[in-house]
This record gives sequence, structure tokens and C-alpha cells, in this order.
Amino acid sequence: MQLLEDRIRKDGIVKEGNVLKVDSFLNHQMDITLFQEMGKEWKRLYAEEKINKILTIEASGIGIAAVAAQYFDVPVVFAKKSQSINLDGSVYSAKIPSFTHQKVYDVIVSKKYLSPQDRVLIIDDFLANGCAIRGLVQILQEAGAQLCGVGIAIEKGFQDGGRELRSQGIRVESLAIIESMDAASGEIVFRH
Amino acid sequence: MQLLEDRIRKDGIVKEGNVLKVDSFLNHQMDITLFQEMGKEWKRLYAEEKINKILTIEASGIGIAAVAAQYFDVPVVFAKKSQSINLDGSVYSAKIPSFTHQKVYDVIVSKKYLSPQDRVLIIDDFLANGCAIRGLVQILQEAGAQLCGVGIAIEKGFQDGGRELRSQGIRVESLAIIESMDAASGEIVFRH
Repeated sequence: MQLLEDRIRKDGIVKEGNVLKVDSFLNHQMDITLFQEMGKEWKRLYAEEKINKILTIEASGIGIAAVAAQYFDVPVVFAKKSQSINLDGSVYSAKIPSFTHQKVYDVIVSKKYLSPQDRVLIIDDFLANGCAIRGLVQILQEAGAQLCGVGIAIEKGFQDGGRELRSQGIRVESLAIIESMDAASGEIVFRH
Repeated sequence: MQLLEDRIRKDGIVKEGNVLKVDSFLNHQMDITLFQEMGKEWKRLYAEEKINKILTIEASGIGIAAVAAQYFDVPVVFAKKSQSINLDGSVYSAKIPSFTHQKVYDVIVSKKYLSPQDRVLIIDDFLANGCAIRGLVQILQEAGAQLCGVGIAIEKGFQDGGRELRSQGIRVESLAIIESMDAASGEIVFRH
């Protein structure tokens, strides 16, 4: 998606350790107009899929998923990190190792909000090693829900997550795929 | 706001300990169509305020704020809970005690995304004792940004947060204010 690639080139900051900071428009400050265009693009890509629910994971996925959901006219469920005393005991759960926070956390979704009748699009901001998405896929399997596909804003194509998910037959639509990036020069090469 | 009150009556569940569960439409599964109507109502209420940024806090506030921001045509910044290694050192921070998780956590906002030029609307899903909102107000004061008001989906009017904020001259617009609720009968009385 040209608009997103242009924005990453303009405002993304490449840091050592394969870190791409897009805090200014994607996952701390959020450019809602950009999110609208991303939502329209996922709707175009998944138009034929009869999606009736979007699943994402807190926190960075929520804003993108909420805005995108308008073009599908469906509710969003966000998976929660760690057990909240406000949730009933009856949840689907998966363990997800976090690269950013260097720990393993539990993500949970109430059994009330996923069922075998659901045709689900997973949306998230980043796809790198794929741990978060694999956790959500596992939750969908547990629920017996149909996974229609995955919508990612930025995929780090040089990490394994996207390849592994696609090799399992999962449709992954990433709006920008980074082939390589260089912290010293700041250069970002996109895959097309 | 009649639409929200009706929905709370229909789908909200009152539990012991002054807990109101609105998981099915507000803060786990999210009814985006409802969020659109809430966003339009805050825009109507704050139409004259020249708001240029919305501030919220992860995780439950993000979806509501992102959808509402469309009617203001402004970006959203969400305060993050606990320090992430992906954030630069340069942040505003506040300590917020969490009733739900029974601990104190740090919330942070990068200094890049708040400035004295900003006229900010704070949006969140719940207002009870007001700890989260007070933390965000403190961050805005640290940034020198102008607080134009607070938009809350559901205020627990029988707790002190709303009264304390308003007594400081802060404009708080809660779309539903609960005067009282009873776990045994499930009855909810709204303030008008």
C-alpha cells in the first residue's frame, strides 16, 4: 500500500536490533485518517470473505482494528493480556512471548465472544516472528471459529512470522512488507 | 445519551463490588456502530473547543477514542502502561492505582506527542474514582497542553471521580452516569 509505505519512509525511524519506530502515526500517536485508508484496503482485499468479526490484541492493534471494522460493519474483539479480575473464568487463552517486553504473557478472550459461527479477520499493527498472531490463531482454533485471514499493517519480511503463517495456508495481507532496513543509513526497502 | 443507557440496561451486568460488566459491547467486544454515535455526541458537545488531539489510555479507551477522533478529524495519543523498551527515554509519566488489577502502574506519553500548542480532549471508557483521568490530567499539565475536557462513556456517579474533577473546573461529559446499581436485582438507575 503506497500510502503506508510513503508514511513509513517519511516518519519511520530505523533503530539497531531490527526495531522500526512508527510511534508518531501507528502505535502511540495514531493517524486515524491513515487507519481509514488501511481499513478500506483490507475490506477491498477480503471483500468476498463474509467476515463477521475482527479479532485483535491489546494494545496497539485496537485502534487500527476499530477503525477498520467500520468498513466491514462488524464488531471487534480484542484479546487481553493477563487475567483481569473483571473477566469471568470462562476464557480461551494462549501464551505469547513478547519480544518488546522480554517476557511471556497470557492472552485471553472470553468464550462468549467467539463461536463456530464466526468468520474472523485478525488485525494487528506488526508481524515479525508471528508469536502474537499464532496465539490468536490458536484461540480461534480452540473456539472452532473460522479464520478468514490476517490483516497486518507492517510486516518485517526478514523475520519468519509471515512465511510460517502462509506456509500453513493462512492468508496474510500485509499493507507494507519490509524486505530490509538499515539503522546506520535509515534506508528501508519494501517487498512488492 | 439514550442509546448508551438503553444498551447498558440491555447488555450490562451488575456484579457485587460495584462492578458493571459491559464486556459484550464496550471493553472486550466492541460495538463500533455504538462508538460512532458516541463520537458524534462528544463532537456535538465539544464542537466549539478547537480540539486538535485526543488523549486516552490503553487498553479499553483506545477503540472508543480512535472511532470518536474521526468526527474531530484529529490524531489520538494513547498513554502506555509501564515502560516499553521501544519508547525513547523522553516521556511524561504518572502513577495510577488500578482498582481492577489491584496494583499501581506507570503510564507514559512520549514528549514528542504533547506540547503547549495542543488543545486536548481526554476520552476513556469508565470514570469511577478518577485515578486514570487524574493521571492523564497530570501528564497534560506536565506537557503544558490545554485540557479542553473529558469525554467518558460510563461514569459511576456514586464514586468520587466525576465530582472531584468537576470541582477542579474540569469539564466532564459522561454519556451515561449511573446513579446507583444493585447486583441482587440487576437494577441500574441513571442520573439525568
